[in-house]
Amino acid sequence: MNKRQTGSLVFMTDFGIKDGAVAAMKGVALNLSPSVIIHDLTHEIPAYNIWEGAFRLQQTAPYWAAGTVFVCVVDPGVGTARKSIILKTKANHYYVGPDNGLFTLVAENEGIAEVREISSANRLPNSQNSYTFFGRDVFAYSGAKLASGVITYEEVGNQIANNQLVMLQYPKPKYENGIVSGGIPVLDIQYGNVWTNIDSKTLANLKVNIGDLLSIKIFEKDKLIYQGQMPYQNTFGQVKEGDNLCYMNSLLNLSLGINMGNFSEKYKVLSGIDWRIEVMK
Amino acid sequence: MNKRQTGSLVFMTDFGIKDGAVAAMKGVALNLSPSVIIHDLTHEIPAYNIWEGAFRLQQTAPYWAAGTVFVCVVDPGVGTARKSIILKTKANHYYVGPDNGLFTLVAENEGIAEVREISSANRLPNSQNSYTFFGRDVFAYSGAKLASGVITYEEVGNQIANNQLVMLQYPKPKYENGIVSGGIPVLDIQYGNVWTNIDSKTLANLKVNIGDLLSIKIFEKDKLIYQGQMPYQNTFGQVKEGDNLCYMNSLLNLSLGINMGNFSEKYKVLSGIDWRIEVMK
Amino acid sequence: MNKRQTGSLVFMTDFGIKDGAVAAMKGVALNLSPSVIIHDLTHEIPAYNIWEGAFRLQQTAPYWAAGTVFVCVVDPGVGTARKSIILKTKANHYYVGPDNGLFTLVAENEGIAEVREISSANRLPNSQNSYTFFGRDVFAYSGAKLASGVITYEEVGNQIANNQLVMLQYPKPKYENGIVSGGIPVLDIQYGNVWTNIDSKTLANLKVNIGDLLSIKIFEKDKLIYQGQMPYQNTFGQVKEGDNLCYMNSLLNLSLGINMGNFSEKYKVLSGIDWRIEVMK
Repeated sequence: MNKRQTGSLVFMTDFGIKDGAVAAMKGVALNLSPSVIIHDLTHEIPAYNIWEGAFRLQQTAPYWAAGTVFVCVVDPGVGTARKSIILKTKANHYYVGPDNGLFTLVAENEGIAEVREISSANRLPNSQNSYTFFGRDVFAYSGAKLASGVITYEEVGNQIANNQLVMLQYPKPKYENGIVSGGIPVLDIQYGNVWTNIDSKTLANLKVNIGDLLSIKIFEKDKLIYQGQMPYQNTFGQVKEGDNLCYMNSLLNLSLGINMGNFSEKYKVLSGIDWRIEVMK
Repeated sequence: MNKRQTGSLVFMTDFGIKDGAVAAMKGVALNLSPSVIIHDLTHEIPAYNIWEGAFRLQQTAPYWAAGTVFVCVVDPGVGTARKSIILKTKANHYYVGPDNGLFTLVAENEGIAEVREISSANRLPNSQNSYTFFGRDVFAYSGAKLASGVITYEEVGNQIANNQLVMLQYPKPKYENGIVSGGIPVLDIQYGNVWTNIDSKTLANLKVNIGDLLSIKIFEKDKLIYQGQMPYQNTFGQVKEGDNLCYMNSLLNLSLGINMGNFSEKYKVLSGIDWRIEVMK
Repeated sequence: MNKRQTGSLVFMTDFGIKDGAVAAMKGVALNLSPSVIIHDLTHEIPAYNIWEGAFRLQQTAPYWAAGTVFVCVVDPGVGTARKSIILKTKANHYYVGPDNGLFTLVAENEGIAEVREISSANRLPNSQNSYTFFGRDVFAYSGAKLASGVITYEEVGNQIANNQLVMLQYPKPKYENGIVSGGIPVLDIQYGNVWTNIDSKTLANLKVNIGDLLSIKIFEKDKLIYQGQMPYQNTFGQVKEGDNLCYMNSLLNLSLGINMGNFSEKYKVLSGIDWRIEVMK
């Protein structure tokens, strides 16, 4: 192992896995350094959905070792003026990708250590006529250089003034007038559970105990989409099949589900910046 | 390589690959041991379908080296009283997951060597407030400890009395009154072929030769869904495009297909414990 | 590393990732050689679509190091007389799979060095009763032997006379009477962009500059499916959301898209040997 080698190279994109794009990125990385360890976060971020990319990244990043290099490509503005950067956080994770908001949540959670713009020296040689595949030509290539110790973080390129980063705005969890409210950042897609960003500390304002009924309203912009009551439980098995419940999910945020069912489908509840939830006891 | 290191760590779940859940499990494993070799069996087991998980596991396991550790998460009862276990088989494979029937077929095929309950010492530190992601907090963590030699199998936890394991019931292949019958455990999804659990030895009671016509009936519970005749062949290319055939699949079980077509879709034949097939010459 | 070890083992199939087939192939490879490095190109080639397999392979192969061994399984004729081969190209890539046209494009692009038929000695022991899973029993097994240095390329089997290979026929890019024409080999599925095989040199006959309007006709066999004008740009961000454009894709071929939209869906344009495009200034 190169002394400067940092760690695994983890890829997240909205490319899907039906064509050869992801494999081209991995080939570039391994061609540069056969010893680099490669893993996938997901390649199924919905096309162009920067917000969902930001969420999936912060969902997973805490479980990866210091030194891990994440190559992240959700990049509707590829080829325009947005910067190509590598963010280093205080958790010693490296995030390689476009400066378009994709790193909003990991920057908030882990703290920004430094932001550097990727220099042209860290671009795949002879790729200057390709304008649409920065994932392969810039992000995979420079990320592999960093992960394998071919360059140090300082050699990525110039530091960005004040370590400034494009940040997305989104509804934060809060407590006001006896109501806890927050956003619905994503769904737990495979099971149809609805994940809010209401953490245990914010929820604690309602003094909720296991088994308590909670009153829930869900809005899309100003339109009421769902209204109902359900018990707060530790786990799905504590309600009957087909019954609703709310619970703390694996990120320790309040979530809504149906035991052996699909809450999102049944009540037409989706996720994103336009969705808001209110919780009362 | 640690002298006690056992082998690859192979993941099978019903999580899908659209969010960060699988990557969180891998991060936990690599954080514990950067040298552990990680592979995927599949993450597309239909949600909560323990039977299909059991089948996919036994379909693949025989091709993996002794010492391989399979982390298996199809766990509708997560957080309830079902045990968290590691099964060691006589083939020296290790199966980590919930004791809910998921290991029925590998236990039958390979033979049970020992069953141990995962102790709380082998749970991810500081995860005790998370009740719904045993895949990450218990199974990936303890599986990685075992695969990388951080613990021996004996250090997993206490042995379960009589090595008892929850086992699923399902239709077994048999020969009676000139009829061979069996179950339809799964479909060969990508191609629409129908896979039975009738092995060559059971089929041999009908003294079938290549080219012989077989009469087939398929039932869902007691309802006749398909009835017809088709030739027994070695391979698809031996019948015309669009023609039906039966053949021994790659598990050496009797299977039904259409050359360049989709048998399951055409005749509405699905799989699972409720499906039964009868074969006559 | 074995001195004869060649490089990574990369899998491409039409198996999908819902069952255990891909994992069985990987288990076979790792059982033979625990040190072999395994990656996936894709397993989502549409079932039996040899042409799309050929395209995906040449899309990715140039980015992989010399010595890489590609195990490729799109094999509608499995078990019939088609040969099982390993092609070595002048780029020092090895392609393992059926001789059915799957290697047409990499053979054209990289040049054929040698073609050898896989001998029965390089088949998984005790698999002779399985006729339908050459991917596992022949291609993964022999590919892993080659990648890990257990055999040399010469030990794969006998050389095929004149290094003959089955080649697919497809529409080539050309310039005639002021019109550039070509084929539509595949779609950029995730985003709905239409990829032609018209390269920059062929397009140069029209003397196109950035911002120029191009007149496009798309035919399925002889039927006109789309007719329209759109600007030639470097990148999507240079037109308004919802507007059409054409551009050089990451393979440096002419492509058609909609900024933040799906060209293929909107205009019902698909891909394959039956699709043809004409471009005028």
